[in-house]
Amino acid sequence: MRSDVRGPVLIVGTGLLGTSLGLALREHDVEVGLENRSPSSLHLARDLGAGVPAPAGFRPALVVVATPPDVIVPHVVAALRAYPDAVVTDVASVKGGLASEVASEAGGQVARYVGSHPMAGRERSGAAAADSDLFQGRTWVICPHGAAASDAVAAVRRLAITVGSLPVVMDPRDHDAAVAAVSHLPQLVASLTATRLADLPAEALALAGQGVRDVTRIAASDPMMWSAIFAANAAAVLPHARALLGSLSEVVDALEAAASEGPGAAGVMKAFAGVVEAGRRGVARIPGKHGGVARRYAEVTVFVPDKPGELGRLFAEIGDAGINIEDLRLEHAAGAKLGVATLSVLPARAGELSAHLEELGWRVMA
Amino acid sequence: MRSDVRGPVLIVGTGLLGTSLGLALREHDVEVGLENRSPSSLHLARDLGAGVPAPAGFRPALVVVATPPDVIVPHVVAALRAYPDAVVTDVASVKGGLASEVASEAGGQVARYVGSHPMAGRERSGAAAADSDLFQGRTWVICPHGAAASDAVAAVRRLAITVGSLPVVMDPRDHDAAVAAVSHLPQLVASLTATRLADLPAEALALAGQGVRDVTRIAASDPMMWSAIFAANAAAVLPHARALLGSLSEVVDALEAAASEGPGAAGVMKAFAGVVEAGRRGVARIPGKHGGVARRYAEVTVFVPDKPGELGRLFAEIGDAGINIEDLRLEHAAGAKLGVATLSVLPARAGELSAHLEELGWRVMA
Repeated sequence: MRSDVRGPVLIVGTGLLGTSLGLALREHDVEVGLENRSPSSLHLARDLGAGVPAPAGFRPALVVVATPPDVIVPHVVAALRAYPDAVVTDVASVKGGLASEVASEAGGQVARYVGSHPMAGRERSGAAAADSDLFQGRTWVICPHGAAASDAVAAVRRLAITVGSLPVVMDPRDHDAAVAAVSHLPQLVASLTATRLADLPAEALALAGQGVRDVTRIAASDPMMWSAIFAANAAAVLPHARALLGSLSEVVDALEAAASEGPGAAGVMKAFAGVVEAGRRGVARIPGKHGGVARRYAEVTVFVPDKPGELGRLFAEIGDAGINIEDLRLEHAAGAKLGVATLSVLPARAGELSAHLEELGWRVMA
Repeated sequence: MRSDVRGPVLIVGTGLLGTSLGLALREHDVEVGLENRSPSSLHLARDLGAGVPAPAGFRPALVVVATPPDVIVPHVVAALRAYPDAVVTDVASVKGGLASEVASEAGGQVARYVGSHPMAGRERSGAAAADSDLFQGRTWVICPHGAAASDAVAAVRRLAITVGSLPVVMDPRDHDAAVAAVSHLPQLVASLTATRLADLPAEALALAGQGVRDVTRIAASDPMMWSAIFAANAAAVLPHARALLGSLSEVVDALEAAASEGPGAAGVMKAFAGVVEAGRRGVARIPGKHGGVARRYAEVTVFVPDKPGELGRLFAEIGDAGINIEDLRLEHAAGAKLGVATLSVLPARAGELSAHLEELGWRVMA
């Protein structure tokens, strides 16, 4: 188990991430000490099995700061000073300024600090929502600054691997620029779009289909957490938000022309088509399921009666055929007693899957 | 079969919707005549089994105009004149101005015209993508104008029911206002957000998670179709687009303050929290799966090894327990060999489902 993290590990902050991390490390028999300003939160994490309150004289090899973002720097600095041999990391979702803030207080000790960002979370927060599997299969971004020691980077990488994550090393500024575009801007847009639904009559909302549900799903998120993220990564989100504002302003102009002069108004159709075309180019760049170059899957659409066991029968019969489902969506019209399952499979298997399912009596859309 | 449509039915326009409708009606042995300006498109629809080219002297009881939006009115008017006993409908996704345009040319004959909007479609277009099941389980909005005859409305309702859709009657202007907010604005926003991904480095796109995938999924749509929809419904989309522009402009101001003065700048956190809060209120209004009042499902998260048959085994074992899956999502980190399935079930069944799956050896997130 050379890839296992070297303990003991001190976890500072026992919210969702800290407690989940403790649980995951304890499953690997890593010694875990816990710290939290609130004794009740600390005891909850202990009772859940995430570790023990760090005893006097505790000597961690690795410290993970999992506090709210506004107090990360002082905790990182305190840990570097208190444990002069330990590697220190944090799990904040914005990384850019942290290393220089730490360096300005801790000097050369910053070499032992390597920020990171496990891309894991859930809609509930706090220790009570913790789970040892939270990091399984998730990307864990490691963001070494210029003065970071390579063995410190390696220690954080082992931590990520131990709890089932995929470590990815990125420059902190590149990380912040990336999450601004692939996470923070979409979050903002989902909230702003969902806001437009708030005052609609119920009969209008009854027409909501899968499109608006997908666009607004992540709008059901925690306002406090997201306010802190938008504020911390404002500089990286700003160019995207400004560009979006500019494009939206052009769309409003085109809508005004179309509304007053009709669809034949000069440039209107070209403006709208340009917006949709540009979006197509952007969405095509999102990588396929296994990372790397985007891979196009073929979609097979199957109708599923809305009763217990039907989805089970469907997937069992797909499994019997030895075909892997790469992705799936399940849709329902409001009031319908029939679901529409869209299965993504390797293009070479799509015909075979359709034939197999039709033979077994499923209604398959050609 | 009193709810079955009364034929013969004439379908004008044999694209995706027209051909699919013909196929669905032929399954119910309804006599279907087809019309299309292009003989090759007409013959393809015929060869697929959607009906026969309307013979001389064809006397339809119902005419469905499924042409591109810019030629719907002349086709509706021509049908009202050619078949003085027939009910005439169309399937365009914007309804507001059609009835008055028809009335200005067809006078009192407009009583036999009732516009409608089957909320069905797919990413491919044309007769070759047609399927008799396209309308199954979908909402079909019927939009009678003030002078519409009630038996004409009933005829369109029977058409919707015959092909497996759920008919919903709405005022044309209410329909257009509704789809502006629940369909057209989300489509616009998805395109604008996806556009921001176009120039990102590949390593940034590798961090794309389920959130941005959901927000931008519908951006992969047809530019010509959507340009026509935005232009036709510009007046209804405009107030939403303007309101979004105003909110986004405030967000940009807050981001600028945070970027230059830091997260502590006056009003910044409040502005961000307000945006997320407003979005939460909006998304909470989207009805649950079966329409009506939104119903909260409990979510059970299960880890699924990425190999053939595992999803099948999972759903078979859920089916054995007699528990219905109301909704599901499947997620993967880029490069991960493990999927995360989030199952929505009635809250009363969630504990039972978790226990059942854990007993069978599945890793379930608490």
